[in-house]
Amino acid sequence: MFRRMRLKNLNNVMLLMLMLLLLQAAAAKVRHYKWEVEYMYGSPDCIENVVMGINGQFPGPTIRAQAGDTIDVALTNKLSTEGVVIHWHGIRQKETPWADGTASISQCAINPGETFRYRFKVDKPGTYFYHGHYGMQRSAGLYGSLIVEVEDGKREPFHYDGEFDLLLSDWWHQSSHHQEVSLSSKPFRWIGEPQSLLINGRGQFNCSLSSSSTLPKCRFRGNEPCAPQILHVLPNKTYRLRIASSTALASLNLAIQNHTMLVVEADGNYVKPFAVQDIDIYSGESYSVLVTTDQDPSRNYWIAIGIRGRNATTPQALTILNYHPTSASHLPPSPPPVTPLWNDFQRSQSFAQKLYALMGTPAPPATFHRRLVLLNTQNLINGFTKWAINNVSLTLPSTPYLGSIKYKLQNAFDPKSPPESFTAEYDVMKPPVNPNSVTGSGVYMFEMNQVVDVILQNANVLKGRSSEIHPWHLHGHDFWVLGYGEGKFDAKRDEKKLNTKNPVMKNTAVIFPYGWTALRFVADNPGVWAFHCHIEPHLHMGMGVIFAEGVDQVKYIPSEAITCGLTGKMLATTNTTTVH
Amino acid sequence: MFRRMRLKNLNNVMLLMLMLLLLQAAAAKVRHYKWEVEYMYGSPDCIENVVMGINGQFPGPTIRAQAGDTIDVALTNKLSTEGVVIHWHGIRQKETPWADGTASISQCAINPGETFRYRFKVDKPGTYFYHGHYGMQRSAGLYGSLIVEVEDGKREPFHYDGEFDLLLSDWWHQSSHHQEVSLSSKPFRWIGEPQSLLINGRGQFNCSLSSSSTLPKCRFRGNEPCAPQILHVLPNKTYRLRIASSTALASLNLAIQNHTMLVVEADGNYVKPFAVQDIDIYSGESYSVLVTTDQDPSRNYWIAIGIRGRNATTPQALTILNYHPTSASHLPPSPPPVTPLWNDFQRSQSFAQKLYALMGTPAPPATFHRRLVLLNTQNLINGFTKWAINNVSLTLPSTPYLGSIKYKLQNAFDPKSPPESFTAEYDVMKPPVNPNSVTGSGVYMFEMNQVVDVILQNANVLKGRSSEIHPWHLHGHDFWVLGYGEGKFDAKRDEKKLNTKNPVMKNTAVIFPYGWTALRFVADNPGVWAFHCHIEPHLHMGMGVIFAEGVDQVKYIPSEAITCGLTGKMLATTNTTTVH
Repeated sequence: MFRRMRLKNLNNVMLLMLMLLLLQAAAAKVRHYKWEVEYMYGSPDCIENVVMGINGQFPGPTIRAQAGDTIDVALTNKLSTEGVVIHWHGIRQKETPWADGTASISQCAINPGETFRYRFKVDKPGTYFYHGHYGMQRSAGLYGSLIVEVEDGKREPFHYDGEFDLLLSDWWHQSSHHQEVSLSSKPFRWIGEPQSLLINGRGQFNCSLSSSSTLPKCRFRGNEPCAPQILHVLPNKTYRLRIASSTALASLNLAIQNHTMLVVEADGNYVKPFAVQDIDIYSGESYSVLVTTDQDPSRNYWIAIGIRGRNATTPQALTILNYHPTSASHLPPSPPPVTPLWNDFQRSQSFAQKLYALMGTPAPPATFHRRLVLLNTQNLINGFTKWAINNVSLTLPSTPYLGSIKYKLQNAFDPKSPPESFTAEYDVMKPPVNPNSVTGSGVYMFEMNQVVDVILQNANVLKGRSSEIHPWHLHGHDFWVLGYGEGKFDAKRDEKKLNTKNPVMKNTAVIFPYGWTALRFVADNPGVWAFHCHIEPHLHMGMGVIFAEGVDQVKYIPSEAITCGLTGKMLATTNTTTVH
Repeated sequence: MFRRMRLKNLNNVMLLMLMLLLLQAAAAKVRHYKWEVEYMYGSPDCIENVVMGINGQFPGPTIRAQAGDTIDVALTNKLSTEGVVIHWHGIRQKETPWADGTASISQCAINPGETFRYRFKVDKPGTYFYHGHYGMQRSAGLYGSLIVEVEDGKREPFHYDGEFDLLLSDWWHQSSHHQEVSLSSKPFRWIGEPQSLLINGRGQFNCSLSSSSTLPKCRFRGNEPCAPQILHVLPNKTYRLRIASSTALASLNLAIQNHTMLVVEADGNYVKPFAVQDIDIYSGESYSVLVTTDQDPSRNYWIAIGIRGRNATTPQALTILNYHPTSASHLPPSPPPVTPLWNDFQRSQSFAQKLYALMGTPAPPATFHRRLVLLNTQNLINGFTKWAINNVSLTLPSTPYLGSIKYKLQNAFDPKSPPESFTAEYDVMKPPVNPNSVTGSGVYMFEMNQVVDVILQNANVLKGRSSEIHPWHLHGHDFWVLGYGEGKFDAKRDEKKLNTKNPVMKNTAVIFPYGWTALRFVADNPGVWAFHCHIEPHLHMGMGVIFAEGVDQVKYIPSEAITCGLTGKMLATTNTTTVH
């Protein structure tokens, strides 16, 4: 209204231009949030339990912003004895590496009672989420959606009439504290598969929405905290579903009965649209799909989410696509879509290989400056079961890297750079001949603007014949996914197959069992960045590496981010007269 | 041997004196410990659970030292996301107030991965213990014994042939994390009574040692982690039992079948010996009793520990006094001693009133300079159930007081001193007329060497007609227990009844239901000191106050103790050129 009135009454071109500038400035908002993190009772899957919530909500509040906005979150830790951080998954944190929210990497954990102010720009529209990045607090329920819309005056390269945000997660009845102890025990105890899958923090453990299940049928009025959120739609419209997976472990598959989905976005990057009946989504990934409500409006349709990639008996998460004017209480007349076989990895690869960048997406540099070949193995260290990368299992230091590298502190982490590849003799198809590995906290340091290729090489697990799925997530960057392959990567044979023309950009990419995945990125973001398996227990067991570039160019780190460990000591001891 | 040889061969008086000096110096040792705190699996009561352990042990290792020794513990936090501290219960920390191990009070919690060095003198022989003092980490199992023997050449004022250390605790199957959430929930959820009582970390939940129990009989080989530690004794000897209670909640009673106990020490202070058939011991207290093995050696005898003061159904903890040469596997032929009725408070008071200082113990100053009358009430704050003292429920600040007071920081805690008494109209026999109270972090500041009297005044709980037991523990000092009374303390009537002649010195004293307890201490120890109900959930709910004296005289605080909160910021911002 304001805009129109002014345009009618004013003709002066100068004034108009000034106004447009002002409007643009006004559009790029600073969005302020005051959040308190604490444990609370909840019933995510209808079984009462303790969850980690923000401002009394689980999942945490959704942040909705526009590209160019600044997000300003004053995060207060209301936990009793635990530190906390929040990672803004998919946000590259250009010029704010200290706000990446990774404990021991970008900042000191926020102590109980303290408030830390995250302040960063969301520079790219897309479907993102946020989550805890300390211990296993993501498993405890610390996550929420972060949606970045296009800025005013710009358009998405597709049309839709309405939108739904689906944040997917998995849930255990055993506390994340207990799980951590299991994973760190000798003998090792695996946490097992999740009891439930959740859609926006809601699942059903002891009942099913569908009468075709062996579970008793759920009786919901709809206001129960574990009742499903129904997707109410009008016929003959197009809806955007923003789907993000914050699972601790599960690789998911989502299908909507009778409806085709058009995939248009992956990890905050536009993709060449392609139609599918179901999508695979791994922990750390996000997708936007368009769904056209062109089916019979006199009935409803199941939305079903199930586990793939692991042999789990966890029931599907279900909700309903409810066509107006059909009542939401009319259950779909046929059973929910069946999740594809968990171990049909050909099918999984086929889905992954349908992803190409939308035209106009920057292509990768034609060649790389440096290539890391990262072998993923399950190992033993002093009898403890760990994951290791090129035989090094990541143990995070107590002093965050960003501060210790910036201030060139000694003894903050292993000064030796970890290995860039593994021995040619290693047989990725068999259990390790020598299962022993070592722990380490070394850093891969890159020259600024170096073009880095990473070959993620999967292998057989510690015992028996099997290989697991690992979705690897890179902080601070998007990467191009150059390709996937089976067996051991062979540069001579495989390099020419890599797609450097129109590869999709993502921040999370999976390695399939016994396979490899080739990624390329430009080390153009001064900071220290985790690159790790997004399966939280795997990261807890050491499955990650640390990348750093241009830390000397980092202009600002708030002192609150480094008042711990050796950087804390550095700050304190420069002022010995006050202390003693 | 060394000493004798030298004495034979040397006659020079000067050399002898020098040697004695050297020997004395050698006797006052520095005892070094390297401890790692972490969660681990354990079966304290034969039910597997997660416990907090030190160096893989639960309870933590016993420290055994001599008066005058220095204890040096390098404590490494191996927890995943939680801070940790250890309080050395009963040690006065003269000149080392920063080593008292109270999070938010004497130090910043030690962050995961960090090592903090506690270094303090144990200046007085006695039976002490140590425990976590952050959140509810004591409930989680973070405790152990700390025994200080007399220095070389000195003698205890009683004789004994052997010694046993019994550290008593209570145990819940629900995790302390879960309990914390319950206590902080609206509506409030009480944690209930413990599932088991433990002696040196060992109890039996699903079975009983005694066949007179309704539980099935335990079948132990003896090496099970929950098998009882048997007390193996020779006939006709005198044994010292050092008994300390680290319970989170339970008030205990201990009896040894057919044996009289001679109480000789309480909380590290000698008492006028008195004989009893059983002793009451509250959380935070310690006693030494002498037991003479003058009974029939052809059988064994039960040692039974049960709950008093609360109407609990928790089974007794049992172990056996095993006379040589009778086999330990011969169970006592008669049932274990029955714990006196839980609500026979006359009996409890009678026990408490048997305690007098051993002759030679310093008498209290005849008069006080300042008197605090501290009303203990259960209240509501914004619908949350809390405990309050003179209507203020303690909430600890994120910046430890010791640093913020020493460096005169603003806004670190409530600048207003909390009330020194309560309104004369308050009826302690009834639920509060106005249940609302406030949270606060104010400090009672004392002049150095001020003689302070504290009247702890009990009252009716929030609802219904009842009043609970609260054992109050003072850090940094012993106090004289001047007396106990029923109903509301009336200075005119009650003051003349106080014992200022030979009152026992303690660091923990109980207030009985609807009663008062009068204490006197000298504020002669520069530092900041918690004074609180030792029931851990009660402290968590705000049942404590903060005392401070002579903080300007504190000469040294290690920077590691204050690198958090506003003191951390103070240290960091004095050095802005480095940070930005």
